Amino acid sequence: MAASPQEEPGAEPAPVSKGQRTRERIFGCAMELFMSHGYEKTTMRMIADRAGVNVALSYYYFPSKEHLVFEFYQNFTRDFIERSAAVLASSSRLEARMVGVVETMFAAADPYHAFAGSLFASAASPTSPLNPFSADFAGLRTDGIALFARVADGCTPRVPGDLAGELPFLLWTVSLGLLYCWMHDHSEYQEKTRTILRQSAGLLAGLLRLSSSPGAGYFRRQLVSVTHLIQSSLPAGTDRPA
Amino acid sequence: MAASPQEEPGAEPAPVSKGQRTRERIFGCAMELFMSHGYEKTTMRMIADRAGVNVALSYYYFPSKEHLVFEFYQNFTRDFIERSAAVLASSSRLEARMVGVVETMFAAADPYHAFAGSLFASAASPTSPLNPFSADFAGLRTDGIALFARVADGCTPRVPGDLAGELPFLLWTVSLGLLYCWMHDHSEYQEKTRTILRQSAGLLAGLLRLSSSPGAGYFRRQLVSVTHLIQSSLPAGTDRPA
Repeated sequence: MAASPQEEPGAEPAPVSKGQRTRERIFGCAMELFMSHGYEKTTMRMIADRAGVNVALSYYYFPSKEHLVFEFYQNFTRDFIERSAAVLASSSRLEARMVGVVETMFAAADPYHAFAGSLFASAASPTSPLNPFSADFAGLRTDGIALFARVADGCTPRVPGDLAGELPFLLWTVSLGLLYCWMHDHSEYQEKTRTILRQSAGLLAGLLRLSSSPGAGYFRRQLVSVTHLIQSSLPAGTDRPA
Repeated sequence: MAASPQEEPGAEPAPVSKGQRTRERIFGCAMELFMSHGYEKTTMRMIADRAGVNVALSYYYFPSKEHLVFEFYQNFTRDFIERSAAVLASSSRLEARMVGVVETMFAAADPYHAFAGSLFASAASPTSPLNPFSADFAGLRTDGIALFARVADGCTPRVPGDLAGELPFLLWTVSLGLLYCWMHDHSEYQEKTRTILRQSAGLLAGLLRLSSSPGAGYFRRQLVSVTHLIQSSLPAGTDRPA
């Protein structure tokens, strides 16, 4: 598990409690079992046995396998948002930023590609709390959309003022679509998805330019209206634990 | 189960064999059990028991539960494509056709909304043969795209020539996205999704108009390039049984 992003760089790391170490060991063992046996075939008992703890204790830290996958998503999201900062600083071009951030997402997900079917598939089901459009996901969704607000902020081509509020959600949705392509992609180094990413980023920049042209005002209002409607239809989350 | 679409209208229906009746009974019992017990909790043995046949016989007709869901998708797709003909004949406006065809899809799926989480969720998983982007789905995908080719054919606003080959795939993909919204939607009569549908259809017409404007040639070439790339990345299917 990655170091907690709350730590200040250079600061003395906070002492890790015994409980925290146990929790991390259970999580680590779960991930190993998900990778070796698949998500479906791994039971909470197998995880507890591997971690050398009572099964009741593992339920205390993680009430279900879904909680373990949610922890994985949290770590994955924090990790890739942190790594994205360098990409955002290196260019103001929307196209370059979009390619860079999504490539960073692929890099963070790369160790899990072989079992992406296990770990990400549950996210696709509309009834799963792991679905990115669900109430449970609201916090991670907000973080993701905030990252794409940084992608759009001050970029070239310039974002028309009336689109500025909705573009981050649109870019986040495109990134999910690309992650979905990536999961399906069995070409070497997921080269097909990477080509689709580069072309999609160019298309988004092209759409932005076209949206700024005279006569595109009505189209922009339609686009704002649809994305606003979709965003407002998504369930709000409960407050996340710190 | 709907009547076979191969039958000529007005022709004497072909006599139904005993095997065909057994097959239909197994399918009907499976659907009842999926609706009452949920997809996951229904076993092949429960289906055979309800249909009053040996479990080996039910495996002969349907080697797995996924084959039963695939049959459901086939019936659903045929049904909604057939019902769409009237909508397509009633207007040449892209917006009206798109709303009408997707409303027809919702109407065909309506009896299953309560257990859409069961029946459609498996389709969302990238590893499932029931996924609309999978090889097994190639036949149904081709039928779906062909329907949206009829939506685009001769419509207003006019489709620029270079987009004509790719627009049907784009419209089909939008319809899948809307079906996905519909599954999530617990508002009365899925009114939220229906509003998103109407606005999205307007947005598509707006995008088409914008694409025809002078200076949009580069954007059109990018759009064609991305959709062509995605389409060509999808696995080709094996020939479907007649």
